Amino acid sequence: MTEKKEAGIRPDFEKSGGLVTTIAQDAETGTVLMLAYMNEESYQETLRTGRAVYFSRSRQKLWRKGEESGNVQLVKEIFIDCDQDAILLKVEQIGKAACHEGYQSCFFRKLTPEGVEIVGQRIFDPAEVYKKK
Amino acid sequence: MTEKKEAGIRPDFEKSGGLVTTIAQDAETGTVLMLAYMNEESYQETLRTGRAVYFSRSRQKLWRKGEESGNVQLVKEIFIDCDQDAILLKVEQIGKAACHEGYQSCFFRKLTPEGVEIVGQRIFDPAEVYKKK
Repeated sequence: MTEKKEAGIRPDFEKSGGLVTTIAQDAETGTVLMLAYMNEESYQETLRTGRAVYFSRSRQKLWRKGEESGNVQLVKEIFIDCDQDAILLKVEQIGKAACHEGYQSCFFRKLTPEGVEIVGQRIFDPAEVYKKK
Repeated sequence: MTEKKEAGIRPDFEKSGGLVTTIAQDAETGTVLMLAYMNEESYQETLRTGRAVYFSRSRQKLWRKGEESGNVQLVKEIFIDCDQDAILLKVEQIGKAACHEGYQSCFFRKLTPEGVEIVGQRIFDPAEVYKKK
């Protein structure tokens, strides 16, 4: 263990305009679920609550994942990369679907020389879950 | 299959200043290896050569992963996310280590309430591999 040496290790929010890129991975299956961003506030709330909270770049506000759909992400482990500008969350995805389009993973399309192939199965119908939209 | 409908699906390089965020994941074990960026040129070279080519933001040039260390990434599958600004590569990591610090994954540090824990094992000694630096 090198805890003393590594004591100052934390996400570098200043590096990319206040945001750190965050990967959410299913803790059990290893499936990469989504990619999002965190600012310092969302990071602190994630630590405090144990649920993934991101910062929405399009809406410019905190994004409590699953707030509307109920598909929250329970954070099991947090990792930081070598240059401290990316975070990996290992999560339990409630509802089995991370993507707002109803798929388990946002990476549900495979690019092949022949075209795009849908490789994920729809778990929910977005029109049903996000009725207000 | 919905190939016709999805025919126009491609990375949206214009969205984030010409760069698309890219996750490299070990195709066999599911370990998330690293996070990097691609511009259109690096993406096209990746498709053409079957090896991961990124764009280095710090050096502002193409970064042919493994060019110096020999630890290239052979691309097995490519996925694109729902809003087309992130790519997931499933790769075979030659040399077993993706991180320039000698670890399998760049995410070799776990953040815990007690401090930072090194969870990865060093596969190579960076001082040996990058002798010119």
